[in-house]
Amino acid sequence: MPDKKPVFEPPKPWTECARDLVNVAMGRKPAETVVRNGRWVNVHSSEVIPATDLAIIDGRFAYCGPDASHCIGEGTKVVDARGRYLVPGLCDAHMHVESGMVTVTEFTRAVVPHGTTSMFIDPHEIANVLGLEGVRLMHDEAEAMPVNVFVQMPSCVPSAPGLEHAGASLGPQEIAEAMAWPNIVGLGEVMNFPGVAANDQTMVGAIAATVNAGKTVGGHYASPDLGRAFHGYVAGGPEDDHEGTRAEDAIARVRQGMKAMLRLGSAWYDVAEQIKAVTEQGIEPRNFILCTDDSHSGTLVRDGHMDRVVRHAIHQGLPPVTAIQMATVNTAEHFKMERELGSIAPGRRADFLIVSNLAELTIDEVYGRGVQLARDGKLSVEIGKYDYPERAKNTVRLGKTLAADDFVIAAPEGADEVDVRVIGVIENQAPTRAMEARLTVAGGVVEMDRPQDVCQIALVERHRGTGGVTNAFVSGFGYTQDCAMASTVAHDSHHIIVVGTNHADMAQAANRLGEIGGGVVMISKGEELALIEMPIAGLMSDERAEIVAAKADILGAAMREMGCTLNNAYMQHSLLALVVIPELRISDVGLVDVRSFEKVDLFV
Amino acid sequence: MPDKKPVFEPPKPWTECARDLVNVAMGRKPAETVVRNGRWVNVHSSEVIPATDLAIIDGRFAYCGPDASHCIGEGTKVVDARGRYLVPGLCDAHMHVESGMVTVTEFTRAVVPHGTTSMFIDPHEIANVLGLEGVRLMHDEAEAMPVNVFVQMPSCVPSAPGLEHAGASLGPQEIAEAMAWPNIVGLGEVMNFPGVAANDQTMVGAIAATVNAGKTVGGHYASPDLGRAFHGYVAGGPEDDHEGTRAEDAIARVRQGMKAMLRLGSAWYDVAEQIKAVTEQGIEPRNFILCTDDSHSGTLVRDGHMDRVVRHAIHQGLPPVTAIQMATVNTAEHFKMERELGSIAPGRRADFLIVSNLAELTIDEVYGRGVQLARDGKLSVEIGKYDYPERAKNTVRLGKTLAADDFVIAAPEGADEVDVRVIGVIENQAPTRAMEARLTVAGGVVEMDRPQDVCQIALVERHRGTGGVTNAFVSGFGYTQDCAMASTVAHDSHHIIVVGTNHADMAQAANRLGEIGGGVVMISKGEELALIEMPIAGLMSDERAEIVAAKADILGAAMREMGCTLNNAYMQHSLLALVVIPELRISDVGLVDVRSFEKVDLFV
Repeated sequence: MPDKKPVFEPPKPWTECARDLVNVAMGRKPAETVVRNGRWVNVHSSEVIPATDLAIIDGRFAYCGPDASHCIGEGTKVVDARGRYLVPGLCDAHMHVESGMVTVTEFTRAVVPHGTTSMFIDPHEIANVLGLEGVRLMHDEAEAMPVNVFVQMPSCVPSAPGLEHAGASLGPQEIAEAMAWPNIVGLGEVMNFPGVAANDQTMVGAIAATVNAGKTVGGHYASPDLGRAFHGYVAGGPEDDHEGTRAEDAIARVRQGMKAMLRLGSAWYDVAEQIKAVTEQGIEPRNFILCTDDSHSGTLVRDGHMDRVVRHAIHQGLPPVTAIQMATVNTAEHFKMERELGSIAPGRRADFLIVSNLAELTIDEVYGRGVQLARDGKLSVEIGKYDYPERAKNTVRLGKTLAADDFVIAAPEGADEVDVRVIGVIENQAPTRAMEARLTVAGGVVEMDRPQDVCQIALVERHRGTGGVTNAFVSGFGYTQDCAMASTVAHDSHHIIVVGTNHADMAQAANRLGEIGGGVVMISKGEELALIEMPIAGLMSDERAEIVAAKADILGAAMREMGCTLNNAYMQHSLLALVVIPELRISDVGLVDVRSFEKVDLFV
Repeated sequence: MPDKKPVFEPPKPWTECARDLVNVAMGRKPAETVVRNGRWVNVHSSEVIPATDLAIIDGRFAYCGPDASHCIGEGTKVVDARGRYLVPGLCDAHMHVESGMVTVTEFTRAVVPHGTTSMFIDPHEIANVLGLEGVRLMHDEAEAMPVNVFVQMPSCVPSAPGLEHAGASLGPQEIAEAMAWPNIVGLGEVMNFPGVAANDQTMVGAIAATVNAGKTVGGHYASPDLGRAFHGYVAGGPEDDHEGTRAEDAIARVRQGMKAMLRLGSAWYDVAEQIKAVTEQGIEPRNFILCTDDSHSGTLVRDGHMDRVVRHAIHQGLPPVTAIQMATVNTAEHFKMERELGSIAPGRRADFLIVSNLAELTIDEVYGRGVQLARDGKLSVEIGKYDYPERAKNTVRLGKTLAADDFVIAAPEGADEVDVRVIGVIENQAPTRAMEARLTVAGGVVEMDRPQDVCQIALVERHRGTGGVTNAFVSGFGYTQDCAMASTVAHDSHHIIVVGTNHADMAQAANRLGEIGGGVVMISKGEELALIEMPIAGLMSDERAEIVAAKADILGAAMREMGCTLNNAYMQHSLLALVVIPELRISDVGLVDVRSFEKVDLFV
């Protein structure tokens, strides 16, 4: 029978378990649980060892070997693995919970049945809204989980100082402070790669604080340039990178002593190409690690999580044990946690999967710290809802009720047509195109142009209630109907991005988010077609992933109904304020050309 | 021209170099040294990459890639590698400097030309004589070296509490104290393996102090039993082991998440058999590490050090890069120092070798922290003599002048022959045999018996000047002449072991060591045939390795002249008080049966 009681205690430190572990291994004390007759997927030796028993006490493996009979006593729960595979619990080496639009708790509920028992999360989004306090909130929620959720301290908040104002900013001092928290494993992706190569004070300080704490510096080098800029970034200290896309990117990083993190997210497909470094070019796999980076709720609910990534890696031709290593022991070593997790071996937390088909990674049961957490794809324990404090739920401050007029773009005096800059969305890519368009002017107002697929985008300030609205034009969504979509998920500073074909719907959409504390909404002619409430920092729902996924489906349908044919249209929407990725973006400061990192005029 | 100035500054922390590293990589600041046109032995990717340049500043690699032209400025020293291999400096993962009978400085002088640039030393011997202060002395000497010498805190001092009295004892408190010293990387081999499996308080405390400090716990499981005792030891926390001898030993350790340390010392030949785990059984090599454990001066002078071990591993069929990984990156990762050393990659200390033949590991030049230290097998820098304080040189305290009578073994009242226990030396093995012999009694004194190869052994207390002498019998040396050999190297408590065929020579030999502060001496009929002075703790000479090796050769010749045909006879001599390895040993407490860990009578 599955264990139904909540499992919330943080794991006891190894040193407090050591005596018990020895006593169980020696047969002087009965184990809590003994698993019999499994095939031990040994990620240390790269073997599958048949007929293996495991004995567990204090949530850790005490004995792993051919016969644990001597560890069985009266109270010992005995699990018969019936020759199935015993696989270490899977680790996601870099990910943002916020991308799932759910809390850490709901994310955990969703991914545990998929075999994920360790997550290394970078709460970069909440940090942009609530600063250090936001990081601490997710840190504390993470600690309360029945699986291992470690936090990488966000490194670049705001992402582009001077080009945007986020809800908070974090400097080397905050980073040094956070390094002392129990659940912080390192620095989150250092995205300001030009800053690293330029010895930017903040970047140098953040990295130094992390290295001084003996923790791992996460990287993010989002450029195909493997020349001097790359070498300058590497010299600055980041130890991993998940932004590579080509085999040569992975090889370059590994040669420099970095870990190549290969990413399969909801919209990232970076494993297949890069894994050829191993499968075709013979590069040693030990420095390769798998991660998701960003998973939408729908992906978690329908396709899975790290099981999906490992399965995909196997389908690319990796031996199953090698693929599993990239999601277990390689990750643990990278974060200097190899004594704690990442393998089935004495002393490690008893996080493991019972798998009936290794190549397909068919997960029958999931154990975390020795307790069965899921079976046949369903949770077998209750993981209670985690309550966020009220102050985390009141983060959308508009300062005023917006009106249609706030979105009107006045033409220069006397013009009857104008040339404007237009943010061009590129399907399935994060970069945008800096476009231009000639628009007509009517009554002194620049008009949108549906045939040209040019509608309006606005960035509504929402952290300090300034009432500020930045207006500009966007192309690529293909909206053919009267509508507006607004989102408080607006990377990275998370103001409100509104994209619409008429001013009244834009105002209504933004006001609606102010009213409910954030989320995403689609309005058409005054009618609300779709809504995902995200009261926590305007970034996360407090509902189940299934419910959020269903609401996201409704949103997607609404976007299509309005004429949008873009793949991943919501993600494109939410990235349009990301003033660190070229070419043209919008921020609370204005329109930003990210090729030159300069503010530019709307009118050419 | 080689750099002739002394190189003693400890390396600047990475964080203090980071800006320089970036500036050099970006071409904004000239490198100190640029190496051009080498074949980069990349231990991360397992490749040999031709046409590679390296740029170095602050003793660290700033740039590793195809073209470092932009890093060259006016003051930059340019080294042309002419297509030769660039290999990371070699690491000895576990070793005792004292085994070379020389100081850390002289050991370093001897091994640097052989490519060793990092040593992980366990000053277990000096700790038995001088306690924590002795460890600190070697720790501080280690820090002053131009290569990396890290210290493992000795874990088992004394080795066998209750069965011997060493010069000092170290408990969990001393171990916790030492963990805060800058150069301590972990706990030295935990030899009391029954103690670990029995949850002995001292062992549990020592391991916990190390784990709490985030450092590495060294293992030493000297038993072929891979059953419950082994699993109990593993559960107790040791993370590596160099005591395996068979392929199955290595495999068992790796499967349990330990590192298999394969040892090639002067008298240890444990690589060839164990490496078959990799070459024949396909076990993943990443968890294999090479070490020497114990190297005599003669080996260093004539055969080399880690170059010898790597070469040997290659000759066993390992690909050269794999063998090099076992002496570089694998070691660095094990000690959580992969950001600092173990590879040629940005940020790491610029410890590297220029090698003209990879499979034979022909080392042309050795660099440590960016400075050429050796060339063509000879040092190219001065490493000055290191002075030990006087208190480290006055450690042999006999309490009295010994006389022949002190070595007389009185027979039980009225006996004319007696059955005695005899320590049986086994050639080339550390264990002894518990033998018995019938000896005649003359004038109330038990007589030695040369035809039976039974002579006397004495343990002379030398730490507290008690004047205590434990007398017993030994067989196996084959001495046919009147002689006695005494040594203050007497593992592990390092009293004086005297083995002799007559009482007068035994007394003279022991007294001689008292006079000179320790060492090894061979006396025959009152004449001194050989002497190695070891004034530092009675364990180390302050002379050059070449001189010590020459004196050791004279000693070996003297032993053979006296009739001893045993291989490694001096080592056997020095191990006879090692009351942790079966079967029969001598200590200041008496004769000890190490099968039962009990004191036993001399007379059966």
